[in-house]
Amino acid sequence: MKHQLKVLNSLKRQKEVFEPINEGTVGLYVCGPTVYSDVHLGNCRTFVSFDVIYRYLKYLGYKVRYVRNITDVGHLVGDVDSGAEDKISEKARTEQLEPMEVVQRYMNGFHEMMTIFNTEKPDIEPRATGHIVEQIEMVQEILDNGYAYEKNGSVYFNTTKFAEDYPYGELSGRKIDELLAESRDDLKNQDEKNHPSDFAIWMKASPTHLMRWNSPWSVGFPGWHLECSVMSTKYLGKHFDIHGGGNDLKFPHHENEIAQNYGSCKCAPAKYWLHTNMLLMNGKKMSKSVDPETGIANSITPVELFTGDNPNITKGYSPMAIRFFMLQSHYASTLDLSDDALLAAEKGYRKLMEANKSLQKLNHAGKGSAGDLDQEINKLIDLAHEEMSDDFSTPRAIGRLFELSAKVNGLKNGQLKMSDIQATTLALLKETFTDFIYTIFGLKDENEGGDNNGTLDGLMNLIIDMRKTAREEKNWGTSDKIRDALKEAGIQVKDGKDGSEWSLV
Amino acid sequence: MKHQLKVLNSLKRQKEVFEPINEGTVGLYVCGPTVYSDVHLGNCRTFVSFDVIYRYLKYLGYKVRYVRNITDVGHLVGDVDSGAEDKISEKARTEQLEPMEVVQRYMNGFHEMMTIFNTEKPDIEPRATGHIVEQIEMVQEILDNGYAYEKNGSVYFNTTKFAEDYPYGELSGRKIDELLAESRDDLKNQDEKNHPSDFAIWMKASPTHLMRWNSPWSVGFPGWHLECSVMSTKYLGKHFDIHGGGNDLKFPHHENEIAQNYGSCKCAPAKYWLHTNMLLMNGKKMSKSVDPETGIANSITPVELFTGDNPNITKGYSPMAIRFFMLQSHYASTLDLSDDALLAAEKGYRKLMEANKSLQKLNHAGKGSAGDLDQEINKLIDLAHEEMSDDFSTPRAIGRLFELSAKVNGLKNGQLKMSDIQATTLALLKETFTDFIYTIFGLKDENEGGDNNGTLDGLMNLIIDMRKTAREEKNWGTSDKIRDALKEAGIQVKDGKDGSEWSLV
Repeated sequence: MKHQLKVLNSLKRQKEVFEPINEGTVGLYVCGPTVYSDVHLGNCRTFVSFDVIYRYLKYLGYKVRYVRNITDVGHLVGDVDSGAEDKISEKARTEQLEPMEVVQRYMNGFHEMMTIFNTEKPDIEPRATGHIVEQIEMVQEILDNGYAYEKNGSVYFNTTKFAEDYPYGELSGRKIDELLAESRDDLKNQDEKNHPSDFAIWMKASPTHLMRWNSPWSVGFPGWHLECSVMSTKYLGKHFDIHGGGNDLKFPHHENEIAQNYGSCKCAPAKYWLHTNMLLMNGKKMSKSVDPETGIANSITPVELFTGDNPNITKGYSPMAIRFFMLQSHYASTLDLSDDALLAAEKGYRKLMEANKSLQKLNHAGKGSAGDLDQEINKLIDLAHEEMSDDFSTPRAIGRLFELSAKVNGLKNGQLKMSDIQATTLALLKETFTDFIYTIFGLKDENEGGDNNGTLDGLMNLIIDMRKTAREEKNWGTSDKIRDALKEAGIQVKDGKDGSEWSLV
Repeated sequence: MKHQLKVLNSLKRQKEVFEPINEGTVGLYVCGPTVYSDVHLGNCRTFVSFDVIYRYLKYLGYKVRYVRNITDVGHLVGDVDSGAEDKISEKARTEQLEPMEVVQRYMNGFHEMMTIFNTEKPDIEPRATGHIVEQIEMVQEILDNGYAYEKNGSVYFNTTKFAEDYPYGELSGRKIDELLAESRDDLKNQDEKNHPSDFAIWMKASPTHLMRWNSPWSVGFPGWHLECSVMSTKYLGKHFDIHGGGNDLKFPHHENEIAQNYGSCKCAPAKYWLHTNMLLMNGKKMSKSVDPETGIANSITPVELFTGDNPNITKGYSPMAIRFFMLQSHYASTLDLSDDALLAAEKGYRKLMEANKSLQKLNHAGKGSAGDLDQEINKLIDLAHEEMSDDFSTPRAIGRLFELSAKVNGLKNGQLKMSDIQATTLALLKETFTDFIYTIFGLKDENEGGDNNGTLDGLMNLIIDMRKTAREEKNWGTSDKIRDALKEAGIQVKDGKDGSEWSLV
């Protein structure tokens, strides 16, 4: 059941067998959020995707060091290297707060959202402002190596010089000449640069800029791209295994990160680059601009998705239904959010959880035989692992679990015979469901969360028992009363041959 | 109902009227945890105390900026300024982790514990490693001002020179000559100091020290005391309102902090210093050493307190019962933890919550009259506020709420008449309970937490109804079955004249 792990390496634009730099360990760096506003749903998708990748690497037995940064300085409004204002400084000015209060508020909100989506915490979550010394040092190294120049207190990365020695644009596939055409000439600091594709690695702060530190060149702040080069190097080494992020970061962020690493350490940072794809809604890019015809913006926040308070959806969806929805697409494919797709995912999530509940209750009387059914189940289990090993294909692994769920339901209903599978196969099947659902996919039982479960279970056993008695005694008054109360309480009872099962609707 | 807020200013050893530096706003700095191990119960007490202070200041209408730091470097093993190893570096070496992994793990654990105790998040939670640049700058300022000297790459604060210009020892009441006697001569770097009471503000790292940064003096790390001077100044200004912490930090930490601030900014950092007192257990200081007679260590962790898995207690206690227990002592008094005291606190917490539940259900038919009872209740409400304004006296405010609870129970049972209080008084009473319990004390309804409450309520209504029917019909079989099932489910039902009430045991 061991399958070679293959990953789609964006740097090579091809799927490759994953071979860690140091046997048994994986260094994983993922670009985290810029904490100047509430986290977007698209970001949540990225972090859920890498959460599953982190979980699966650990499941495979690797000792993983997962580093995901917090960008709390240096990310410029408009994402352009110019004299424009830092995103966090701007927000602080607008909200009349100390920049670090803005950072704290949105960082807390981000952490809460990650908890809601049941993602594991990274092993290290470094902050850009926590690494100013190291960033200044890297700027100096790049200057010393001749790949940067200083102008009026700012330091720019010299892409032309760099391109003479190293391949610039390897990740994004852009040529330095094309970049000239793409550059925006209207920006303040543009005239300081020798070449439009050059980018700031240290920026002199304007007199009103709130976030600022002393440096050999000016009182200023680091360029946005720099922090990731510095923090990945500090915590994972100059050359590490996997660098991940949303594919909107490929250019300029990751391209420039690679340039900075070569420019200072003279080697490539990551061996494998993994990029998540975009989150669409109703087939289109999300946008806050209101459609003049429908009067609706094609946009939704995570909170609106939970509450249902958005015209694009008919109802709210639980965090686990949404997580399941995310896993139904491959991380490197676009994910198209729509009400129909969410409804289907919610149904799928419940079906899978129900199947697992039924499965864990199945018992094997004897040893069983290793016939066709047994082989079929073992084959499907093996395939589920194979799918996950093929570039973390959660949608195909989920497909295999659904095929297995059909077998589970057959065994439960008696359409399939327990004696046709071996006891060891049943045990393996149980383990497979538990491993995939909880350990790898990171789903949890929403209906069984909370502290009151034991209590609810106890009460429901009592009520189901009294309902049975009332029915046997043809006491329709009591029986109806119970039915109505359960409906009111949002509880559904299903009667089966092994007794009644209940679930929260 | 407006009372002047008075605070016990440790700096002056007296209670003073609180007058903020800038009208309407309060800058509050509290020394946070060193994240190299699980948070201690004594620390929890300190942070719960300042949480209530923060909440009450906001309740009074102040715009509060609450800064609580994370010490993730510089706190030396043995708390002594020597060449000894940094606490986090040492832990990292022992556990074979990157120091920042140790920091992340224990910081996460600390945050979880603070959430469990229902403390509000500070507005800014800065980390020492996030302010290396600023710390280096402050060292330079102190050197420039002549209050420090460099020796072999380390920089020491010159207490003798400082004591010539400023009062050193004002907070702790120690004299510089006494410090000589207290100093420990056996420590490595002691011989580098000009005077034993001098302390390191920058330390040269030994070759094996894991946490290290470039500085003008050496590759090293900041002294522990420095970070708080730097971060309070950065986020609250050179002179701010309140500095808090555990009173074990008075010396040397806070004393040296004050010296550093004078030494760099030439002014006192905080106007008011507030110190929480020690947490004892069974009348003695907690200690991990096992008593040879009893075989028990006089020590307990927060988790053991929740689970009951410790020989010093007979059962586990809920976080809110423990929080209530902490509030039953004044923050500046010692708090003596014992099983009996916890049992009493648990009872008190439930009594208060029950009284509030009953109170919120009380309705006023008419206008009522402003007689003796009415005046008495209004007086008690006023006194509750007065107690809190008197240096945040939670124990006395709780006392007033209990006096008010007796009135509530009287009104509920009909021993007191609703017509004897005004409708406006009832409304004020309801508001007072809500304000104190939730907003100021930061307690919450543990039995009503979780997502399943509506469901539980619905089911319990059904069961209580069926229980009533069974009793009326003298159907003892059903009645007994319900009784047993509720007991099993941990639910207690109390029958009153207004029907039955249930609660989780």
